[in-house]
Amino acid sequence: MDAVLREYFSLASARARSIDDRYERLWGRLESSASGGKRFRPLLVLAAYEGLGGTDETQAARVGAAFELLHTALIVHDDVIDRDFTRRGLPNVSGSYRDIATTAGIPIPAAEHRGMSAAVIAGDLALAGVYRLVESARLDDVVREKVLQLVDWALFASAAGELADVDFSMSASVPSIAKVLDMARLKTAVYTFEAPLQAGAVLAGADERTGDLLGEFGREIGIAYQATDDLLGLFGDEARTGKSTLGDLREGKSTLPVAHAATTPLWPEIARYFGRSDLTTEDADEARRLLIACGAESATRALASRHAAAAIAVLEQLPAAVGERLRPIAVRALERDK
Amino acid sequence: MDAVLREYFSLASARARSIDDRYERLWGRLESSASGGKRFRPLLVLAAYEGLGGTDETQAARVGAAFELLHTALIVHDDVIDRDFTRRGLPNVSGSYRDIATTAGIPIPAAEHRGMSAAVIAGDLALAGVYRLVESARLDDVVREKVLQLVDWALFASAAGELADVDFSMSASVPSIAKVLDMARLKTAVYTFEAPLQAGAVLAGADERTGDLLGEFGREIGIAYQATDDLLGLFGDEARTGKSTLGDLREGKSTLPVAHAATTPLWPEIARYFGRSDLTTEDADEARRLLIACGAESATRALASRHAAAAIAVLEQLPAAVGERLRPIAVRALERDK
Repeated sequence: MDAVLREYFSLASARARSIDDRYERLWGRLESSASGGKRFRPLLVLAAYEGLGGTDETQAARVGAAFELLHTALIVHDDVIDRDFTRRGLPNVSGSYRDIATTAGIPIPAAEHRGMSAAVIAGDLALAGVYRLVESARLDDVVREKVLQLVDWALFASAAGELADVDFSMSASVPSIAKVLDMARLKTAVYTFEAPLQAGAVLAGADERTGDLLGEFGREIGIAYQATDDLLGLFGDEARTGKSTLGDLREGKSTLPVAHAATTPLWPEIARYFGRSDLTTEDADEARRLLIACGAESATRALASRHAAAAIAVLEQLPAAVGERLRPIAVRALERDK
Repeated sequence: MDAVLREYFSLASARARSIDDRYERLWGRLESSASGGKRFRPLLVLAAYEGLGGTDETQAARVGAAFELLHTALIVHDDVIDRDFTRRGLPNVSGSYRDIATTAGIPIPAAEHRGMSAAVIAGDLALAGVYRLVESARLDDVVREKVLQLVDWALFASAAGELADVDFSMSASVPSIAKVLDMARLKTAVYTFEAPLQAGAVLAGADERTGDLLGEFGREIGIAYQATDDLLGLFGDEARTGKSTLGDLREGKSTLPVAHAATTPLWPEIARYFGRSDLTTEDADEARRLLIACGAESATRALASRHAAAAIAVLEQLPAAVGERLRPIAVRALERDK
């Protein structure tokens, strides 16, 4: 899979170089954005594919790479929408172009806009690459159509979730747990879990029921991951996660623990710390103490366990070789610390 | 072609409605952005296709619709990059979402960012639609691969041109005429003229030489259109063009007349009016007078004529039925007033 992406970027960069150096640099920045991730989506495509008896690794690698590039496109544009200029502590596409502009003496607002403009362009290129990689897998007509429908649904869902997220961030009130779950499923879980697993099943020629079960596993495990993610964003070890535990509180992000807390009598106290960009470390400690005291932390942990268990139960209805490959992923949903 | 797009949006909207009303509204806004244009790209696909003896109108309409949606995706994201909230006098995607937010009491900077966020999402959906429409044409493997390569090149070129345009707008100096031409070809002409014409040829099963000649025609006519466009942006009749003749001057846009003017001794005088956001109607009249006096206006008009003539000369090497369909487009490049 890494080889597929390397080849893709190497060809694109060479072509960009024939236009000019700056364009080649944009491709280089995009390649960096696509590198260094956990390769979660390609691994899920492969796990389903191999577990269901698929043997053409090239096909699975190409479709896996397509999902990885979809992830890249979505995070690059998500960072534009969130006005983020770093990711995991390093400048992202927007950030590196902003920095080039400020170094050239361009004032901050214009430099930031330039960074975001470059990221809009880069995300479009990544999105186009998704379809090129699917095409490059040389699937037969029926399989290709099904894989494209899954890619399509993944993007369609993610756009819906992103739009809902933008609406949340504009609204003064905290959405319900059900709405936060819906949003998270659409924005992230469909393209991260459900669609890659189902694509692996389609490539392996599995029947519809198998595909549906993998979708169900993906949905359950997606919720477990989201809940754990939200807990790590509030209570995680920054040295392990590479993410400040102040960020989500300062942004007033509608996470699962917060949605739970908003239904408890302690909420008025917690709300004082929520969405305050000047939140101090001491404020955050107090907010965390209140999130534990009101039961939001344990409720979210229980939610994660419940859905991970449901995911594992789904595995029992799937061939043993699939279960073997996916069970560790379900366990990791709960145990991970980064 | 219109029926193809209507069907596409009707299916997508119904699917969006099953998620929520707000998502359906985004699709509605995207459909408006895709409507009301001149359908230039689909008409070029069809002209080449029919001129070369193609008879499957459905295929040509679907590929034509794909290029129209590519245009939609690119202008929606271009408006984000240019921070434009209107297009042809009406709110665009960013503008209508900004307006919804301000109506809800959200302050301007946040409302504008919300508008731009919705437009980033909408453009991604349109871009994905491009590939779905090509797929829906049910082309055979070889033809589909060639059409996808053209779509790919169209987006790749447009991204390169957009990046160069962002760089121009950040730079204090006016780029050379050659650089402005390169940028305009990449940003607009490849996806507007060259690729649709060549896609029509591929669909009709034409040989490589025919495709190359159509590409050459597209390149020449693209320059003629760009030059006329730049002249209309400075000297056009606002009532006809629907575009203020102050805009390009205020923005300091690197157009062909300006790139020419920058090489003349009158430039220091013209430069005083260039890129000034507080430019008055009187200032603009004076700038226009100077652009005529320094020869920039006539040089740009001559450039347009020269390239339109070159385009017509290329037509003579193509089958008569193609020439018949494309000659009016070449003539219109010079004569249009909007």
